[in-house]
Amino acid sequence: MPRIVETIVTTISAEGEPHIAPLGLIAEGENWVIAPFHPSRSLDNLRAVPFAVASHTDDVRVFAGSLTGRKSWPVRPAHTVNGVYLQGAVSHWELAVESVAEDELRPRFSCRVVHTGNHRPWQGFNRAQAAVLECAVLVSRLKMLPAEKIEAELKYLEIAISKTAGERELEAWGWLMERIDAWRVQQMKSP
Amino acid sequence: MPRIVETIVTTISAEGEPHIAPLGLIAEGENWVIAPFHPSRSLDNLRAVPFAVASHTDDVRVFAGSLTGRKSWPVRPAHTVNGVYLQGAVSHWELAVESVAEDELRPRFSCRVVHTGNHRPWQGFNRAQAAVLECAVLVSRLKMLPAEKIEAELKYLEIAISKTAGERELEAWGWLMERIDAWRVQQMKSP
Repeated sequence: MPRIVETIVTTISAEGEPHIAPLGLIAEGENWVIAPFHPSRSLDNLRAVPFAVASHTDDVRVFAGSLTGRKSWPVRPAHTVNGVYLQGAVSHWELAVESVAEDELRPRFSCRVVHTGNHRPWQGFNRAQAAVLECAVLVSRLKMLPAEKIEAELKYLEIAISKTAGERELEAWGWLMERIDAWRVQQMKSP
Repeated sequence: MPRIVETIVTTISAEGEPHIAPLGLIAEGENWVIAPFHPSRSLDNLRAVPFAVASHTDDVRVFAGSLTGRKSWPVRPAHTVNGVYLQGAVSHWELAVESVAEDELRPRFSCRVVHTGNHRPWQGFNRAQAAVLECAVLVSRLKMLPAEKIEAELKYLEIAISKTAGERELEAWGWLMERIDAWRVQQMKSP
């Protein structure tokens, strides 16, 4: 399996409106593949404007927020492509679509990095950030996974949160826990 | 609980010999606290030479390697303190000890960042890197945790490895799995 990095991908609609989505980029030689699900705004946008920006942010609230209806994050214009990057990004890649492999479920846009922005020194690994990302994956799959599996994994992820989180990670975790709590109530009603 | 980042800390002995250790740095206002266990070389070194360097590397082989006897990684001289940083680091902090809070188990060295090096743009989150770090935590606690808990967590971590790892992450995971396999054999002999 190829390497995947979790990023915040911004695309631009035909009308020039930016759209922010957390997406995994798939390594393909020197290129990175964006494979948005069909249908989605990221997919529509990539067909209309064949550029994207991948923002590498260590503010995991953007990942948790995108899943929980908090989609407004400050952006800045990209340097070389029609697009925007997250103001809080540690670094970002400006991407140009080179080719498209059509697929009914997830068309694959193979992109070349045409510009890299290096905004701040990376602050290193934080286990709570990783736990928020894993929890976001769980929250996006609540309907697909067995309840016991979800509860067991949450219990594991909570350890890193309780031991290593700062304020941003706690806020992001709290947003995801609101979703988990609503799901728990739902489970009690119709398990 | 304060925020903790997982870094590779290099310290220097009285004889000028560098020592590399993976350590969590604890946020304390603007400062970062290094709390090495007693006894350890990091502790001896910090008493002899009150400087340290925290290298933020996304090469998780350094973390897995430090646990499995692979301790030789290329370094470069620090810019402002008596110390070295990892050649492969994305960024690094040069730290000066400002105060020491003595403790029988883990004395706390409160350090000020006196220089920050920004070497490469961070490449974003990779779930496999986080899984390697979590697995390293498990491997360092094999004697303290119940076997079923270890096996359950490994099964969970393997998902991110199989889905998102690149070559470096697979190599690091393989080193840790050698340790896990040896522990499994041991378990079968005396469970």
